[in-house]
Amino acid sequence: MSGNTIGKLFTVTTFGESHGLALGAIVDGCPPGIELTETDLQIDLDRRKPGTSRHTTQRREPDEVEILSGVFEGKTTGTSIGMVIRNTDQRSKDYGKIRDQFRPAHADYTYHHKYGIRDYRGGGRSSARETAMRVAAGALAKKVLKAQFGVEVAGYLSQLGPIAVEKVDWSEINNNPFFCPDVDKVPEMEAYMDALRKEGDSIGAKITVVAKGVPAGWGEPVFDRLDADIAHALMGINAVKGVEVGDGFASVAQKGTEHRDEMTPEGFLSNHAGGVLGGISSGQDIVAHMALKPTSSLRLPGRSVDVDGQAAEIITTGRHDPCVGIRATPIAEAMLAIILLDHALRQRGQNGANPAIAPVVPGAID
Amino acid sequence: MSGNTIGKLFTVTTFGESHGLALGAIVDGCPPGIELTETDLQIDLDRRKPGTSRHTTQRREPDEVEILSGVFEGKTTGTSIGMVIRNTDQRSKDYGKIRDQFRPAHADYTYHHKYGIRDYRGGGRSSARETAMRVAAGALAKKVLKAQFGVEVAGYLSQLGPIAVEKVDWSEINNNPFFCPDVDKVPEMEAYMDALRKEGDSIGAKITVVAKGVPAGWGEPVFDRLDADIAHALMGINAVKGVEVGDGFASVAQKGTEHRDEMTPEGFLSNHAGGVLGGISSGQDIVAHMALKPTSSLRLPGRSVDVDGQAAEIITTGRHDPCVGIRATPIAEAMLAIILLDHALRQRGQNGANPAIAPVVPGAID
Amino acid sequence: MSGNTIGKLFTVTTFGESHGLALGAIVDGCPPGIELTETDLQIDLDRRKPGTSRHTTQRREPDEVEILSGVFEGKTTGTSIGMVIRNTDQRSKDYGKIRDQFRPAHADYTYHHKYGIRDYRGGGRSSARETAMRVAAGALAKKVLKAQFGVEVAGYLSQLGPIAVEKVDWSEINNNPFFCPDVDKVPEMEAYMDALRKEGDSIGAKITVVAKGVPAGWGEPVFDRLDADIAHALMGINAVKGVEVGDGFASVAQKGTEHRDEMTPEGFLSNHAGGVLGGISSGQDIVAHMALKPTSSLRLPGRSVDVDGQAAEIITTGRHDPCVGIRATPIAEAMLAIILLDHALRQRGQNGANPAIAPVVPGAID
Amino acid sequence: MSGNTIGKLFTVTTFGESHGLALGAIVDGCPPGIELTETDLQIDLDRRKPGTSRHTTQRREPDEVEILSGVFEGKTTGTSIGMVIRNTDQRSKDYGKIRDQFRPAHADYTYHHKYGIRDYRGGGRSSARETAMRVAAGALAKKVLKAQFGVEVAGYLSQLGPIAVEKVDWSEINNNPFFCPDVDKVPEMEAYMDALRKEGDSIGAKITVVAKGVPAGWGEPVFDRLDADIAHALMGINAVKGVEVGDGFASVAQKGTEHRDEMTPEGFLSNHAGGVLGGISSGQDIVAHMALKPTSSLRLPGRSVDVDGQAAEIITTGRHDPCVGIRATPIAEAMLAIILLDHALRQRGQNGANPAIAPVVPGAID
Repeated sequence: MSGNTIGKLFTVTTFGESHGLALGAIVDGCPPGIELTETDLQIDLDRRKPGTSRHTTQRREPDEVEILSGVFEGKTTGTSIGMVIRNTDQRSKDYGKIRDQFRPAHADYTYHHKYGIRDYRGGGRSSARETAMRVAAGALAKKVLKAQFGVEVAGYLSQLGPIAVEKVDWSEINNNPFFCPDVDKVPEMEAYMDALRKEGDSIGAKITVVAKGVPAGWGEPVFDRLDADIAHALMGINAVKGVEVGDGFASVAQKGTEHRDEMTPEGFLSNHAGGVLGGISSGQDIVAHMALKPTSSLRLPGRSVDVDGQAAEIITTGRHDPCVGIRATPIAEAMLAIILLDHALRQRGQNGANPAIAPVVPGAID
Repeated sequence: MSGNTIGKLFTVTTFGESHGLALGAIVDGCPPGIELTETDLQIDLDRRKPGTSRHTTQRREPDEVEILSGVFEGKTTGTSIGMVIRNTDQRSKDYGKIRDQFRPAHADYTYHHKYGIRDYRGGGRSSARETAMRVAAGALAKKVLKAQFGVEVAGYLSQLGPIAVEKVDWSEINNNPFFCPDVDKVPEMEAYMDALRKEGDSIGAKITVVAKGVPAGWGEPVFDRLDADIAHALMGINAVKGVEVGDGFASVAQKGTEHRDEMTPEGFLSNHAGGVLGGISSGQDIVAHMALKPTSSLRLPGRSVDVDGQAAEIITTGRHDPCVGIRATPIAEAMLAIILLDHALRQRGQNGANPAIAPVVPGAID
Repeated sequence: MSGNTIGKLFTVTTFGESHGLALGAIVDGCPPGIELTETDLQIDLDRRKPGTSRHTTQRREPDEVEILSGVFEGKTTGTSIGMVIRNTDQRSKDYGKIRDQFRPAHADYTYHHKYGIRDYRGGGRSSARETAMRVAAGALAKKVLKAQFGVEVAGYLSQLGPIAVEKVDWSEINNNPFFCPDVDKVPEMEAYMDALRKEGDSIGAKITVVAKGVPAGWGEPVFDRLDADIAHALMGINAVKGVEVGDGFASVAQKGTEHRDEMTPEGFLSNHAGGVLGGISSGQDIVAHMALKPTSSLRLPGRSVDVDGQAAEIITTGRHDPCVGIRATPIAEAMLAIILLDHALRQRGQNGANPAIAPVVPGAID
Repeated sequence: MSGNTIGKLFTVTTFGESHGLALGAIVDGCPPGIELTETDLQIDLDRRKPGTSRHTTQRREPDEVEILSGVFEGKTTGTSIGMVIRNTDQRSKDYGKIRDQFRPAHADYTYHHKYGIRDYRGGGRSSARETAMRVAAGALAKKVLKAQFGVEVAGYLSQLGPIAVEKVDWSEINNNPFFCPDVDKVPEMEAYMDALRKEGDSIGAKITVVAKGVPAGWGEPVFDRLDADIAHALMGINAVKGVEVGDGFASVAQKGTEHRDEMTPEGFLSNHAGGVLGGISSGQDIVAHMALKPTSSLRLPGRSVDVDGQAAEIITTGRHDPCVGIRATPIAEAMLAIILLDHALRQRGQNGANPAIAPVVPGAID
């Protein structure tokens, strides 16, 4: 279908430019009878939004979502759910110079060549601002996954530039501005970011996202494998350059005897697979990782061209995240939730049950 | 759509189990007027097929494809193209013991739970044998890409277990059984594989695939970004656990000033982005990598369970690739070609031109 | 995809209940560079809206549409276009009694059984109010069809109950409240409607919709034939029970020599086919007809049941159209335009031209 | 998606030209565990095939279908099911003259203009021969509908040219070559056809198709309404020019009090709606009708043009049905079954049950 829609049974369609009037989404295929209010969506929107710490862009958007349809007396009706978020804090004059120039490593150049026209303010449709709607839709997906399927989705920052997390304590994630699960790394990350901001440069990051409670049986081989759809959803997030499921690229140098997750009547003995085998969930935790590149919106000058092909040196002013990974965790969670719910409904549709056979061994490893 | 179809305008739908009567595909949306014979498809099928060297499975399948429709007097008609490959060398008795057991780290367990029934012979639908049809369809896509868009797609093995390629000479790739572009690494790889075969173990690999001549403008934000669709297509190949575009996971530790590809009137100065910006092609080479896990079909025993949840020790007999990455290059090329052609048609459909604006700078770097 | 989306390349997704906060739509795949303002959409919305004559429902909605994205400096950008219309004149107390009852021949019963929950006010999602968004999206489609393809779409009421139109004068259509092209029938129609309103009963109607300037070559056999997609789009309009293309049901009793449209170098000699042959446009006018049933919202009592299966007699109060066909012409035009534009883009995408071959004979007959 | 695929969860993709090597289909999304052999499909194929009476085309094709995948030990596996039918009785020389001419009222002209190239033999892809695969896929859908949902689909010829059926006795339908349910009309129909064959002319027909046992709740408003999808599927059959659900075009002149189907605790009192309300099934019999035009393949000369736009007089030789409606009943049944099964799975997917609420009143009227 069209590029602004994702999903087959549970679908999300979005619209909205960074400096346009509003962002919005239509969520379709949501099972009826789910309790839903704006508050359910606002929680994850608040986790994502800008201006909440010195480490992220200083643009202040309340990001207040309004539900316009598909909910009646507090419950979803099964009809399409319209949501909208009005933009309030656009400073379009920050972008005036960009009209005829292409900021290096931004989508300016490619949007110009694809469409012949672009809303240049704040990156237009290519801006990460647009991900607010994905987070809203994902919050709804999370709710349904929990209520109807007992599935929970959560993520964290696993690496900030050269600083890798060494332990994962889920209770720490919401205690710092990074979604970092390793309290010991937080001071190092803060210092790193402060220095980066002075430099005017940016850095990449890696996010890990996990789904617990997914039964065996979700995924639609051979093309809509669960891991393929996860890859599609995560790689489709702004700035993402790589996606892994389970051991990912570490699998390249692993022997088969090392990589394979053996089974016993008590359960699996490991989870190198990341919860997906043959494109279908195994009952183990789904584990995926995504790599985000450093933002290209820098006040350090870069060489580029203008629309006439003339050389230009670009300095990006305006308010930008020096590390887009910092606010990316809720977006990754949202996309994983959307994909999982779509697959839950597809499994239920074709096979009438979830899964078709009661699991032979327990799913998740410790 | 259904899980066995990929694409929006140019679509490929496949069927076929490892030990079934035949494999087949229907390719739809192919532009008319393209010269096509079985030979065009057979070339890539022969590159992929088993039994061509001691390093791959010894199952001998001629993999001869037959075109059943959609071609008239040697040219595509624009109607759906049916293709079929008959299976000839199934040794179903090799698999008799697997009926009630789940080979560890195979799709046996997940297919059983998803459908409640599975063709256990040779992995059924989960077998990599199925990829023969993707290669056939991909060969057609390659032809159209070249004829109508001047785009070429090719790949190579960039890493075999711990052995990383150090230089890329495209003319070497078809000279060895590994699709290895670095002639100096070939003896090391051969020795490594010989030792592995004796051990009875397996190893992972990394494949790199490149498209040259792609104009700026292909890709459908925000969900059907070109890189997202590439990730979807590659992660959907059997045994793939990770996908990168451009610098991929190396981007995590890069600074923005380092990662960004600056532009001059003569062209781009680097290609960290891998040819995709904001989800749309930039005119640079599209560069993607995929990580394949080591196969789990081993004659070394592994712990597992049977359909009743009882402990079992599994030894996989039969004829298996100790490194599935060795035959994966044509599959990766095929999937990239299919995605690119789909996007070429979508761009042409919505925007009427390819791209909408003549490129302002030359695309590919040296 | 989901049920609230129509189209493949040019897609329309809608949301909104009759008494909810707002109606909305996302239009995706619109070619860039098209001039667009709210006024372009408002024209057709005003033709459709209620309260404009004594012959239609007395609910007064301004139906003012707001464009929220996808347009920059007055032109479409190629990105998704969000539109919203706020509901203002809901009188929800008119519907209080319906909560636990099923109005006969309404969707109350079926929505209740499908979802287990329904917004009963004003018919919720099943209300024809929802068609306002289709008209808005269709107005955009009409604009693109005209600007890029030289195609025009227009319709008229061809029959009101027993009163059939006998001549078609396109200039009369907007001069009366019925979209009637035969000025001589208007007084009879007005008298008929006045009597009907006194009775408290309702009547059916037939609408004819025509597209001029469609080149040969649009339509995607074998399932997405142009006529099949037209049927899908028109039958999907509230209250429609039948669709014809060309001579439709009259073809049943026609001989082949009578039905076939012969061709000469000057053009076709007739148009029994309605402009579609083998599911593809022939260059002739596309002619389709749809039959609308009489509305079931009557103040004349009807036998029904309540949610517990107990007998109930239902009187529908509130403000309803005694003939929904009266306001249906703009909706039929909108749906035909949406389908045609989707097919125009699909043809251009796969075949690169529109049509692939310059027409051998002129299209439309006199 | 592509034009040769129909359905969202349960999908059918076909290929094959009239004089090509073979016809084929891939059916995807079929629930697993359904018993299936070629015989199940052959029954309906034999009902459809040519050469079985003097009233239809004398081309003799065995139409023997072969299942190539997706079935194991006699049961569907849930994976994609490939089917193929080899063409055997093509007489291509019958069509040699057509190469550069357009038979009037055939798809020759439109295929030529859409694609720039066509397989002219026997109508190529536009031939009704292609419908054999729809019938095979539909036979599978019928089986699943019966086994998993208790739904049965059957049709009949309701009108042959001017001869309308007056009573419906389901047991008579397979006793005559017309699928006529009114034994008293059969001699009249036979005489009519004999005279027609002597004349060399052709005639239209009307087919009625019914589904019994469909629960309330199938259909996906607002665009994929059940009746809209039925219209799409039936209008997509070769030669169909009109589709009705329930009273169809008779609704135009009906009053609301006459059309509405009242309900009592014992059930509905009538079925003017044809089993669909608000686009969703009501539990009543689904009743649809389709109008087929008279075939344009006549040995009576017709005026046309050739590919250079020069006048030509066309006589169609070869073996053709003087009334395509005679063999159309199995095709209509097949398409209705395919649509219903797709909707059954979609309802089950989103709502988890079929229907969500136990029916309040019994469905079908007497």
